[in-house]
Amino acid sequence: MGRVTTRRPVLRVRDGRAVQRPDTLAVEEPLQIRVGEAGLTTTMRTPGDDFDLVAGWLVSEGAVAAAADIVAMRMCADELNTVEVTLASGVEPPRPRAFATTSACGVCGSDSVAEVRSALRWRVGDDPVAVATAVVADLPDRLRAEQRAFDSTGGLHAAGLFTASGEPVCVREDVGRHNAVDKVVGAALRKDNLPLTGHILQVSGRASFELVQKAAMAGIPVLSAISAPSSLAVDLADECGVTLLGFVRGGGMNVYAGAARVER
Amino acid sequence: MGRVTTRRPVLRVRDGRAVQRPDTLAVEEPLQIRVGEAGLTTTMRTPGDDFDLVAGWLVSEGAVAAAADIVAMRMCADELNTVEVTLASGVEPPRPRAFATTSACGVCGSDSVAEVRSALRWRVGDDPVAVATAVVADLPDRLRAEQRAFDSTGGLHAAGLFTASGEPVCVREDVGRHNAVDKVVGAALRKDNLPLTGHILQVSGRASFELVQKAAMAGIPVLSAISAPSSLAVDLADECGVTLLGFVRGGGMNVYAGAARVER
Repeated sequence: MGRVTTRRPVLRVRDGRAVQRPDTLAVEEPLQIRVGEAGLTTTMRTPGDDFDLVAGWLVSEGAVAAAADIVAMRMCADELNTVEVTLASGVEPPRPRAFATTSACGVCGSDSVAEVRSALRWRVGDDPVAVATAVVADLPDRLRAEQRAFDSTGGLHAAGLFTASGEPVCVREDVGRHNAVDKVVGAALRKDNLPLTGHILQVSGRASFELVQKAAMAGIPVLSAISAPSSLAVDLADECGVTLLGFVRGGGMNVYAGAARVER
Repeated sequence: MGRVTTRRPVLRVRDGRAVQRPDTLAVEEPLQIRVGEAGLTTTMRTPGDDFDLVAGWLVSEGAVAAAADIVAMRMCADELNTVEVTLASGVEPPRPRAFATTSACGVCGSDSVAEVRSALRWRVGDDPVAVATAVVADLPDRLRAEQRAFDSTGGLHAAGLFTASGEPVCVREDVGRHNAVDKVVGAALRKDNLPLTGHILQVSGRASFELVQKAAMAGIPVLSAISAPSSLAVDLADECGVTLLGFVRGGGMNVYAGAARVER
């Protein structure tokens, strides 16, 4: 496992005075994901939990949904930053993103929503879980309490999986918020715990289309964000039956989709 | 030009009371970038300044560096979210990302740094500009003052190009911070203003490898971020001769690379 933080010299300027001192930074390094001979993607991520990251990315892309879909993952021997995946027979690798664009002229938000909806393996909208606002209101503090590296760097996003009663299941940090979510989802896949029925995913930042997609593909019924959602995040949550909470801070929150699950 | 914000119903929960009311959200929509018949990429972005976004993306990818490198851009007639680019004769489109991963096993941060360095069109490190800490300290407030949509949504990143004396040249907002930077760079390219010698790029969030890459490819000598940089952002700034400032807030700042340009 690679280093999550590193030290670099920095010139610290305050009130016109400058002091040279070491500073702690979040590590960012490329990770190449390969299936057999083919490089599928390279992502910039914080080292650590790389097999979880790769497994979660494959869930998000719709390629895998059970632990048995992945036969093996190995780090290439010479280098730290390449994971080679062997998929089970009959499991297709995701198409490289460049091919995923249609040959038709024109794309729109509802196409993107429909694409995710047709890739879903579970009926997330049917999850009967109820969540109490009092439980959700505590999740940002609980997430922060589990963040090991943020305090020293200020530069890491976090994603945490919680039970409906607010117990932490898995928390991961990364320079990329999408990577933090993939690590959480991948850890669950490798324990064969998908779909993540009855769980809440708490994230440290905003809620984009991509994060709602990742929650839905993992079967997570509730996504809670400290900051604002985008329009397409709300549309996708509506369409997939994901409860979407935003601005979860200071004891309050906004419910953007799936309000039926929220108990006050 | 598409809408930057939109309204959606939201259930607002405060102190155990819930009120249904409309809320303003940042718009997120896919944009497909095509060169001739080939779809190069699809990015999620906030509509508006789409030609700037596409032009800036092509700069960041190393495909273009002068206004004349792009012969034409047009929105596909039927749909709002596809831009078709015609490049000048002899200008090669960027390779789709999926092919950009090497066939070699293993990647590392220094490979990524070397790749950007070899793609640079300008010697950013030779830019003799000096920047005063008093000027930089004001840039976050100046950026915020130019942000039109943030106040209503809380969900938009911003990037602003400033002169060394702190005069705003161009400010753009987007749900994606990389898109906000591409829009600023693309607007400059279309005026044939590259390299952006003597300028400062101020961003609303963190400084990643990707943002330093975009600054360097546009010939911007100083990148200033309100939040933390990553390790690889510092390495790339060091190697390309970009001055990298982080935690620019409350009158103070940290200088992570290129301190020789900073006057106190």
